[in-house]
Amino acid sequence: MKRIMLLTIAIGILAGIVALTARASRNTNQTNTPALVTEIPAGYREWRFISVAHEEGNLNSFASILGNDIAIKAYRQGTLPFPDGTIIAALHYRFIPSAENNKAFGRDQSFVAGVPTNIQFMVKDSKKYAATGGWGFGHFNNDAKPVDDAFMKTCFPCHQKIKERDLVFTRYAP
Amino acid sequence: MKRIMLLTIAIGILAGIVALTARASRNTNQTNTPALVTEIPAGYREWRFISVAHEEGNLNSFASILGNDIAIKAYRQGTLPFPDGTIIAALHYRFIPSAENNKAFGRDQSFVAGVPTNIQFMVKDSKKYAATGGWGFGHFNNDAKPVDDAFMKTCFPCHQKIKERDLVFTRYAP
Repeated sequence: MKRIMLLTIAIGILAGIVALTARASRNTNQTNTPALVTEIPAGYREWRFISVAHEEGNLNSFASILGNDIAIKAYRQGTLPFPDGTIIAALHYRFIPSAENNKAFGRDQSFVAGVPTNIQFMVKDSKKYAATGGWGFGHFNNDAKPVDDAFMKTCFPCHQKIKERDLVFTRYAP
Repeated sequence: MKRIMLLTIAIGILAGIVALTARASRNTNQTNTPALVTEIPAGYREWRFISVAHEEGNLNSFASILGNDIAIKAYRQGTLPFPDGTIIAALHYRFIPSAENNKAFGRDQSFVAGVPTNIQFMVKDSKKYAATGGWGFGHFNNDAKPVDDAFMKTCFPCHQKIKERDLVFTRYAP
């Protein structure tokens, strides 16, 4: 009985070390770029819905864009620029055909969310992220592979193209 | 005088019979589709995110599926059948290309939510909707056009095809 307990504890400690190492390596990787959001904002999966998006081609993604309370309020009131504390989350999944839906419909027409691929965040903090329009950018792969700096450096230049909406592409779906 | 009184009474009774018949026939008409949700559930736009979906062809729809607290809890815990009080909402929009996103990406690949078209609801009440697997079905067009019975009669037979998941097609996106 004692052995089982010790084994359980040992496995627990091991799992903890693995988790910490994974998190540490991800953090280290991200410290080079100041606009990086290095931790996944807590509770994002409980946030309210902003809109949906689909990218074809290599991305082949299905996105749901959610916002924290500050984001939702700003969207609904049309507040621009977004106030500090705004966080927008883009939950990305693979864009896949649904065999079971197609069977029910009797024709091939249905696409659903496949495996989760990554989550991206935009965090508004006009002081901390002053160099990048007040926005911090985060990208967290679901396979826990770290994101390289080169990739993250593309966020701000692209989002800058939508200056008239404070660097936010997604419009609110009523 | 007596004759006029009798005639008036007779007409009154006749009118009553006509009115009752009309109501009865309407009820009959509605009792054929007892599974109708006739009012939009309050606060659905604040609910949490379940998943996304896209239908090609005539529907050309982009959907976000949201759930009330009971729905989200049941999904996360894998509770089947869904408990009474569960409400699932499918917010439908047109599936349209995004010119501004495509411009930023430098290629045509981006699709977003267009105008809202309709909202569909599934409401679980195992007593009220006993005849249709415990689910009431609602469809509310954004253009406020009423939905005819023939259309609503298609809900249950199709959803019955996914009995193994308590008539709910949408899977939870983590």
